Amino acid sequence: MLGALEAGGTKMICSTGDENGKVSSRVSIPTTTPEETIPRIIAFFREANVEALGIGSFGPVDLDETSSSYGFITTTPKEGWRNYPLRGALLRALSVPVGFDTDVNASALGEYTFGAAKGVSSCVYVTVGTGIGGGLIVEGNLVHGLVHPELGHFWLRPHPSDPAPHGFCPYHDGCVEGFSTGPAIEKRWGQRAETLPADHPAWMLESYYLAQMCVTVITCLSPKKIILGGGVMRQTHLFAPIRRQVLEMLAGYVQHPAILTGIEDYIVPPGLGENSGVTGALLLAARASA
Amino acid sequence: MLGALEAGGTKMICSTGDENGKVSSRVSIPTTTPEETIPRIIAFFREANVEALGIGSFGPVDLDETSSSYGFITTTPKEGWRNYPLRGALLRALSVPVGFDTDVNASALGEYTFGAAKGVSSCVYVTVGTGIGGGLIVEGNLVHGLVHPELGHFWLRPHPSDPAPHGFCPYHDGCVEGFSTGPAIEKRWGQRAETLPADHPAWMLESYYLAQMCVTVITCLSPKKIILGGGVMRQTHLFAPIRRQVLEMLAGYVQHPAILTGIEDYIVPPGLGENSGVTGALLLAARASA
Repeated sequence: MLGALEAGGTKMICSTGDENGKVSSRVSIPTTTPEETIPRIIAFFREANVEALGIGSFGPVDLDETSSSYGFITTTPKEGWRNYPLRGALLRALSVPVGFDTDVNASALGEYTFGAAKGVSSCVYVTVGTGIGGGLIVEGNLVHGLVHPELGHFWLRPHPSDPAPHGFCPYHDGCVEGFSTGPAIEKRWGQRAETLPADHPAWMLESYYLAQMCVTVITCLSPKKIILGGGVMRQTHLFAPIRRQVLEMLAGYVQHPAILTGIEDYIVPPGLGENSGVTGALLLAARASA
Repeated sequence: MLGALEAGGTKMICSTGDENGKVSSRVSIPTTTPEETIPRIIAFFREANVEALGIGSFGPVDLDETSSSYGFITTTPKEGWRNYPLRGALLRALSVPVGFDTDVNASALGEYTFGAAKGVSSCVYVTVGTGIGGGLIVEGNLVHGLVHPELGHFWLRPHPSDPAPHGFCPYHDGCVEGFSTGPAIEKRWGQRAETLPADHPAWMLESYYLAQMCVTVITCLSPKKIILGGGVMRQTHLFAPIRRQVLEMLAGYVQHPAILTGIEDYIVPPGLGENSGVTGALLLAARASA
């Protein structure tokens, strides 16, 4: 039995399953303080008697295996979790191999292996929810690089009609995350995103920003598939205007049938639904014990 | 003896050398029509009796080895070269192994192997000249993806003081290339870029746009090194304001010493000077014959 931890800023989802993507059990534990939350995670995986654990964690995290803070959650503003040795705490308690990556890289790995990007050599998985992050597989490899990508934090061009043209990121004037998360939508319109009807101007703006983000990803990386997941993307009506505006913004420059005529299969929802992350974390567990 | 062809829209640089980065000879042939230019290239490499050839080509190009147009220059506006089988023409004439990639991927490979990115696992090489393009090495691999990256063509946010806030790209309103190439600078200020003094406002704008580009690359890809080459970057005074504005725009979000305190070694000129491309093309030749 393999264990998977999707470590989020709101909840910790603990699962068991196998490396073929089968998920056997799943519990959700609120993310409060490490003192309260970590013992409950440990208890779950001890009880399940897992042979290995894979973690997909919220970040920023340290993925550099040669670093003294490898496996730490680093500079998060989340109370109690700044510089927290998440991987180390679970490794010490469980004494099994522990794989560790970002939450979005775990999701990218799940989708790449069994989901929407199965059979292609590169993909980008973007979650659009309370935050925005991206996991990358390039030429078959999970991308870490210097730290790890932070796809939510490059600048976008504000839409002329945006009532909040600077967005809401505390760090950056008008980055992807500042414009396009669920909380940004709520702050802009004074109403929770999921209560806004499909014809509300909120969604025109949202699709405009996410299309800009996709265009940047396409020109920077040329992925073979872009997967948009996360809570905001449950508004599935967003896909059509995102795809349309990506074509308009690229203006025929990237001449490939996957984009020109196949964009409905190019910018897609997760093939594994809510299970991208857990599936990827199980694969990280399998890799750690290999 | 290995051959290297840097195929540009203005000139074709033909060189010979070895896989250790030694360049033995070098000639420059104007890029006119294939009928005129290609026989001169063939004559050079026949004369040099090369055992293998590496090509780094202007684009867009087809890098998909399974495609019927593999090795073609595809949708270029350059007269006579649209859908031209560059690799095939040289392969047939020379009957030696021919490696083929984008010009900027060749430069990235040269810098990664012997230059500014030697010893790190990922880098981005950007040329800023008559066009803008980027070559990527990620986790040790040259990145192709769906087509290949087109780093010059994502949107930037115009500077409030820019007299040409839409840029000059025929495809995109305000993309990197539209704002920041040598010809864009000339069109904006009515004067050739290299004649503008270092304190001209042109360079403040230029560094602002290239800093935005670097921030996008850092957040999308998290490379371990960014190398800025090409004709415009011979204005070496640009590096200091680019680095300063990258730090301002990131606003402390990416917490890594390579950026926070080491940015002078992070955003750098090519270590191989004018030889990044030829060195990389020689390495492509060596790989093709391996």
